[in-house]
Amino acid sequence: MSDFRSDGALALEWVASYLERVSELPVLSQVEPGAIRAALPTAAPDEPEPFAAVLEDLDSILVPGLTHWQSPRFFAYFATTGAEPGVLAELLTAGLNQVGILWRTSPALQELEEVTLDWLRQLVGLPDAFTGHIEDTASTGVLAALIVARSLRPDRNVLVCSEHAHSVGEKAARMLGLDLRKVSTDDEFRMRPELMDPDHACAVVATVGTTGMASVDPVPEIADRCAAAGTWLHVDAAYAGSAAIVPELRHHFAGWERADSIGLNPHKWLGVPMDCSVLWTQRRDAFRNAFSLVPEFLRSPDDAVNLSEVSIPLGRRFRALKLWAVLRCYGRSGLEERLREHVRLAELFEGWVRDEPGWEVTAPRHFSLVCFRLDRSDEDNERLLERVNGSGEVFLSHTRFGDRYQLRLAVGNFRTTEEDVRLAWDVLRREAMAL
Amino acid sequence: MSDFRSDGALALEWVASYLERVSELPVLSQVEPGAIRAALPTAAPDEPEPFAAVLEDLDSILVPGLTHWQSPRFFAYFATTGAEPGVLAELLTAGLNQVGILWRTSPALQELEEVTLDWLRQLVGLPDAFTGHIEDTASTGVLAALIVARSLRPDRNVLVCSEHAHSVGEKAARMLGLDLRKVSTDDEFRMRPELMDPDHACAVVATVGTTGMASVDPVPEIADRCAAAGTWLHVDAAYAGSAAIVPELRHHFAGWERADSIGLNPHKWLGVPMDCSVLWTQRRDAFRNAFSLVPEFLRSPDDAVNLSEVSIPLGRRFRALKLWAVLRCYGRSGLEERLREHVRLAELFEGWVRDEPGWEVTAPRHFSLVCFRLDRSDEDNERLLERVNGSGEVFLSHTRFGDRYQLRLAVGNFRTTEEDVRLAWDVLRREAMAL
Repeated sequence: MSDFRSDGALALEWVASYLERVSELPVLSQVEPGAIRAALPTAAPDEPEPFAAVLEDLDSILVPGLTHWQSPRFFAYFATTGAEPGVLAELLTAGLNQVGILWRTSPALQELEEVTLDWLRQLVGLPDAFTGHIEDTASTGVLAALIVARSLRPDRNVLVCSEHAHSVGEKAARMLGLDLRKVSTDDEFRMRPELMDPDHACAVVATVGTTGMASVDPVPEIADRCAAAGTWLHVDAAYAGSAAIVPELRHHFAGWERADSIGLNPHKWLGVPMDCSVLWTQRRDAFRNAFSLVPEFLRSPDDAVNLSEVSIPLGRRFRALKLWAVLRCYGRSGLEERLREHVRLAELFEGWVRDEPGWEVTAPRHFSLVCFRLDRSDEDNERLLERVNGSGEVFLSHTRFGDRYQLRLAVGNFRTTEEDVRLAWDVLRREAMAL
Repeated sequence: MSDFRSDGALALEWVASYLERVSELPVLSQVEPGAIRAALPTAAPDEPEPFAAVLEDLDSILVPGLTHWQSPRFFAYFATTGAEPGVLAELLTAGLNQVGILWRTSPALQELEEVTLDWLRQLVGLPDAFTGHIEDTASTGVLAALIVARSLRPDRNVLVCSEHAHSVGEKAARMLGLDLRKVSTDDEFRMRPELMDPDHACAVVATVGTTGMASVDPVPEIADRCAAAGTWLHVDAAYAGSAAIVPELRHHFAGWERADSIGLNPHKWLGVPMDCSVLWTQRRDAFRNAFSLVPEFLRSPDDAVNLSEVSIPLGRRFRALKLWAVLRCYGRSGLEERLREHVRLAELFEGWVRDEPGWEVTAPRHFSLVCFRLDRSDEDNERLLERVNGSGEVFLSHTRFGDRYQLRLAVGNFRTTEEDVRLAWDVLRREAMAL
């Protein structure tokens, strides 16, 4: 254990120092494809090496190949945070090395997962009919929900979602051999329920906070139509769901309590390190019917329901520990405050863009994502983004809608301040001038 | 960062002390279902709490609800290890909080994953036509392989495996709507290739090291029949695959180099903390055709192949870091030595059982798993196992084959010594006497 203590102190200091200097590193990695591979040995060593050698190579070989998601100047995709209590909880998770297969293989893992998801359910204001479990990512969560939906309606081979729904729906449909029908949206990028036809669908995916522009589908109307047609409703709130903790943002989630299943990613906007994706359902029996399969080698004398009976993987990490640590060390008030601040920063940025001649805001802003563009050609916007990201000072990403190339700025890192958002705006204008 | 350093020192000391005392804790948790839940608050705190409070509750509330997979006296299912370098690498992974979606979102994550899987490929003696990626568990890996197999042969709706194949195949088949055909086995629990009919199957799963008794399917004959029928062959070596590092055990893997895909779990027998499941394939193009879907918001100027294009989830943790740390800090020689020692300990235990009147070894032993029973009724064996596990001194599990209840002792924890295996045998005989 002496090695573990001394190596551990080195690893801990490495992380502490990394988090101190991360805002000074180029946010988007500037290496060429293959450069990291070429710098690594082509085979594993024959003899043991000290852990310190791993840390040395982490610095000299890997760090240049990192895109710094922990940077306060990361504004791409949806910005995330591995908050400190969650990072340390991952050390505990690895040290304990629990494997959740059956309840008895780790009663604490299963019951803490159930309890923390109930805490989070209350924080976002969902009724207690919802029970949850943790998946690695929303991709797996959507896939699981669709498997259950299809098991209930094997006669229906169609999945319905909006043209702006996340690609995970399309990917899951392809994996399961379902036909995907994309429904058009209105001028605020919301699915038009009157155009959807749920009668032949086994499931409809509605989104609160789409990936492109964080638009909000009209969930109450969609729920009405799903109920009438006997169609499973999955609400994808992977990014925006955390915002339901904030009272003045709760109204965006009207109707989600009528969903059969809901996805929300605490690893996106709630400070929990990758990976932690929540899947709630009020149809747990349907999940159990679809997934339960307890072979002899896993039968046990207790009669607890095992989490492996309601989800795809048989074994699971002790992911609830990091969610527990973050919920406790921030508290409801601490999380609410950070989420509200992110929305304020996005609103501020939106105002700057709106007030600046030659720039335009291109979608309604509901949460912490701003869609905008320079009022010039798509090619100019694309070149602008490459210059901005090539500077290493900030990292933004893009999308396409309204047949135009669109820039996106997403606030979501707990360390981001007004100064960082101001820097992003300064860099954008500077590089636009230099085009 | 001062909190992170001081809280981190507490967390690190907690893990070090846990690993020192884990062998004295009851291996199987002795709590009743619901006990942990009842001891936890029913809602998240309103105000922030210190990280030290999390550690206190970990001790007082959660530890009694842990089944200690890190204990050297854990012999159930397949025993695993979260080895120290892997545990510390998980701290680094969480601190970096990389999200592997596209190559550019973390070039180091993607290229280290490719490189470490190539190192491991060489260690187990597979040809360089195999490229790999990491999934959370073998459940996901088998599901992914079957999705690819079915995409190639949508006209074939059947999955073939042996009656002793792992239940993940059956679960994946159910998820995808495939018919499962289980093939009978011979007197050494090996699939009988002459009874399988691959002509209507999109895939066959052959197993090297089944979960029940670690039997080895005749992969060369199965590969012949799959090749003739144009059927995808997946080799499940989730547990035993690591043993291919040991030269004198390599012969069990004859023919696996002809598989279309192979699964091996470094989180099972290679010291890597949960979760890390490898999926290799020599048909990477088929994976890419089945899974690639790059929506606009993820298009990027570089033309690297992204790992999300060959697997189910869109985003992935930096799991390669722990595999890298373990491969380097043990080296080939260190891993080989531990694997060989585990097989020696299993062989020793097997000899003790064989030599003891009233006990019998019930399946051929190839690796580190021994199947055995007391020569009495199933009920007596079941009661014996409950008494042994109820003592907390060791933890074993069971299975059923040959129409009998069977006991299993699996050696696989890096901290297990001959003394621990001897203790298991002493406890078994003591409790058998007391029946």
